[in-house]
Amino acid sequence: MASLELTIGNKNYSSWSMRPWVLMRQAGLPFSERLLRFDDFQPGSPFKTALAALDSAGKVPVLRDGEVTVWDSLAICEYLAERFPDAGLWPADRAARAHARSLCAEMHAGYGALRNHCPMNIEALLPEVGARVLREQPGVAEDLARIVGLWSRLLERHGGPMLFGDFGIADAYFAPVVMRIRTYALPVPPAVAAYLDRVEALPGVADWVAGARAEKSYVAIDEPYRSERSVQLRWPD
Amino acid sequence: MASLELTIGNKNYSSWSMRPWVLMRQAGLPFSERLLRFDDFQPGSPFKTALAALDSAGKVPVLRDGEVTVWDSLAICEYLAERFPDAGLWPADRAARAHARSLCAEMHAGYGALRNHCPMNIEALLPEVGARVLREQPGVAEDLARIVGLWSRLLERHGGPMLFGDFGIADAYFAPVVMRIRTYALPVPPAVAAYLDRVEALPGVADWVAGARAEKSYVAIDEPYRSERSVQLRWPD
Repeated sequence: MASLELTIGNKNYSSWSMRPWVLMRQAGLPFSERLLRFDDFQPGSPFKTALAALDSAGKVPVLRDGEVTVWDSLAICEYLAERFPDAGLWPADRAARAHARSLCAEMHAGYGALRNHCPMNIEALLPEVGARVLREQPGVAEDLARIVGLWSRLLERHGGPMLFGDFGIADAYFAPVVMRIRTYALPVPPAVAAYLDRVEALPGVADWVAGARAEKSYVAIDEPYRSERSVQLRWPD
Repeated sequence: MASLELTIGNKNYSSWSMRPWVLMRQAGLPFSERLLRFDDFQPGSPFKTALAALDSAGKVPVLRDGEVTVWDSLAICEYLAERFPDAGLWPADRAARAHARSLCAEMHAGYGALRNHCPMNIEALLPEVGARVLREQPGVAEDLARIVGLWSRLLERHGGPMLFGDFGIADAYFAPVVMRIRTYALPVPPAVAAYLDRVEALPGVADWVAGARAEKSYVAIDEPYRSERSVQLRWPD
């Protein structure tokens, strides 16, 4: 079996990288990680130059599997589900699987307000920002309400602990949203808060978070709300 | 076998509806169509009220298959590929399938400049707009260059007539881009122009285009470049 290599960006910021990484780590799939540090993303920058060597879209994440190159987090998840059919990455039930795919596709192209106004920043704690964007940006409140409603219904329908019972692509796909809810201290009902706790306790998620904390990096383009790294840390150094 | 029902928006404008509809029609999958006319999309509008009855994201397209509801064009395509494994909706070759999924996922969440500045409007012919946005919006030229590059390499690698040889999800997924290139008269090299011709000649695409022309509708919110329906028609009435 050829070895899998996943190219990712900074763990603190790269929500799209987090999804397949957490999926593979939590599901116990063997892979190596290649981390490209975010820079200014200008043509010719180290980040862009490294990515240009891959036959992809010039963005992270990218999965290499021998001669096969897959880019875009959703295509990578589908590829892995096919490649490891016994790993249970999608729900076994056909209707549940269709539902999980719908949720992930919606996440993939949607929730623009939440993504724009609450960018992932795992190590930061920004409750004042969260309260302000909830007041000032109705789209953020709408996105959050939609997500809370979906998760609540799924946890009730499938009985937890994860969205469709056992861990799978949908949980990996929403893990960056869990990070955002924490960073911006967005309000959620108790059943959803318990799900957030369970997601953060997953070894695959905890490993990613530990990696994000260890980076101790500050990328200005990804920091609309902090002026330096040492302030507003969720876990003070 | 339960009957498939696909809920779509206006054929002239709804690029996301076009993808699974063209896929199903061209692949010969049996389905019924339910067309919800676009309106002002305000809460309580007929369009939103009809969609609210479906367990989905409140957008088109939505596929019903008996008790199963699938929303979002990409999840619908994956669902259909599973449901009709002999229809060849994805390429049979594993590497080609991974490549096709990457392209579709990139389309699903990307090409924002092209999508924003050249919204699908099948019946319109707007070459001056196309020339202007290409001059004024570098993102549109970048999106077009990326698409032309991808298509050119694929047509050469697989030998045509479609992107991966036979017709499949990737072609359906890019069919609305073909429409945009035509409407805005965006410049493409001869090999790509020949692909556009072949896509437009597909019966499934021709059926959709005929439906779009028959609507003779004008939805102001989707018409940034025309003040009334009767002007700048690609096929004069």
